[in-house]
Amino acid sequence: MANELQGRKIAILLAPVGTEQVEFVQPKKAVEDAGASVDVVGIQTGEAQTMNSDVNPGETFTVEKTFSEVSAEDYDALIVPGGTVGADNLRGNEEAVSFVRGFFEQAKPVGVICHGPWTLVEADVVKGRTLTSYPTLQTDIRNAGGTWVDEEVVTDQGLVTSRNPGDLDAFCAKIVEEFAEGKHEEQARSA
Amino acid sequence: MANELQGRKIAILLAPVGTEQVEFVQPKKAVEDAGASVDVVGIQTGEAQTMNSDVNPGETFTVEKTFSEVSAEDYDALIVPGGTVGADNLRGNEEAVSFVRGFFEQAKPVGVICHGPWTLVEADVVKGRTLTSYPTLQTDIRNAGGTWVDEEVVTDQGLVTSRNPGDLDAFCAKIVEEFAEGKHEEQARSA
Repeated sequence: MANELQGRKIAILLAPVGTEQVEFVQPKKAVEDAGASVDVVGIQTGEAQTMNSDVNPGETFTVEKTFSEVSAEDYDALIVPGGTVGADNLRGNEEAVSFVRGFFEQAKPVGVICHGPWTLVEADVVKGRTLTSYPTLQTDIRNAGGTWVDEEVVTDQGLVTSRNPGDLDAFCAKIVEEFAEGKHEEQARSA
Repeated sequence: MANELQGRKIAILLAPVGTEQVEFVQPKKAVEDAGASVDVVGIQTGEAQTMNSDVNPGETFTVEKTFSEVSAEDYDALIVPGGTVGADNLRGNEEAVSFVRGFFEQAKPVGVICHGPWTLVEADVVKGRTLTSYPTLQTDIRNAGGTWVDEEVVTDQGLVTSRNPGDLDAFCAKIVEEFAEGKHEEQARSA
């Protein structure tokens, strides 16, 4: 069980402010525990302020690479945490959206939780896909052409989504499984 | 100039947490200064925690009426402030969305700023309308059938929208003007 992601390189997004702490920390630990190496990628390097329950300041974490330094080609998989302000912030950054779109174009697995799917709406990659999210995003996802379902964890051809921090155990188990499988050609076909 | 809203009754929304303080305070003062009486309407009565720049706690303000106690029939106009977390919170409440939709069905003027238009997307009232918002909402507004433009203040048949706190002076002047005009029949036709 412990080394199924050995040798894999994974990117996790971190907004300058407002990423939900537990949705950053727990998935990062899950893939590292499975042997992956992880880069924290963001808009600017340096310390980023996470939040707990959206409005209470959490710990700070370091952004290691900026979007201008990396591309989806450098990684095997991507994790997009939520946090209302953080997810809104990332979707507003063209380089972030372009980076996310690259994983879909290259058929690489992606795990997204809570408000994270706003970035997928912005990248125009939800059309024809089935996914979940924090419930307030369901209209945006349907209007973007996706099918929204209310389930703990949803897997659709390499795209793994969950609703909120309460789903993290199931989300983390599933991203490790999907990331270990590698490329999903259906992911690319729909991008 | 000072009494153009004399006798008018206006509702302003306030989320339990995360409404942007200045987007609540300044429009409320503007319509009160013009003679209107204002009810602060929210999901639950009691103190609500506003934010400054989304993540810094602002002052608390009192929610005077809940959505279950009121309807659009009770008011002449509506103001919807932003704040990322507050606006996301309000769109997730069915009673809030239904309350907002009522103003469109009754052709009553509505002023919405920043992240506030998410509630309009949720109420499905942006189709065929021209509006602005905080830029991160532009894809959601277009996907919902609206035309998104990047202007300080946009007026479309009783619907007044602005982008961010920097637009508040123009926004406040325009809502007083539109609210004074009263009903806009085109507003109802497009709902």
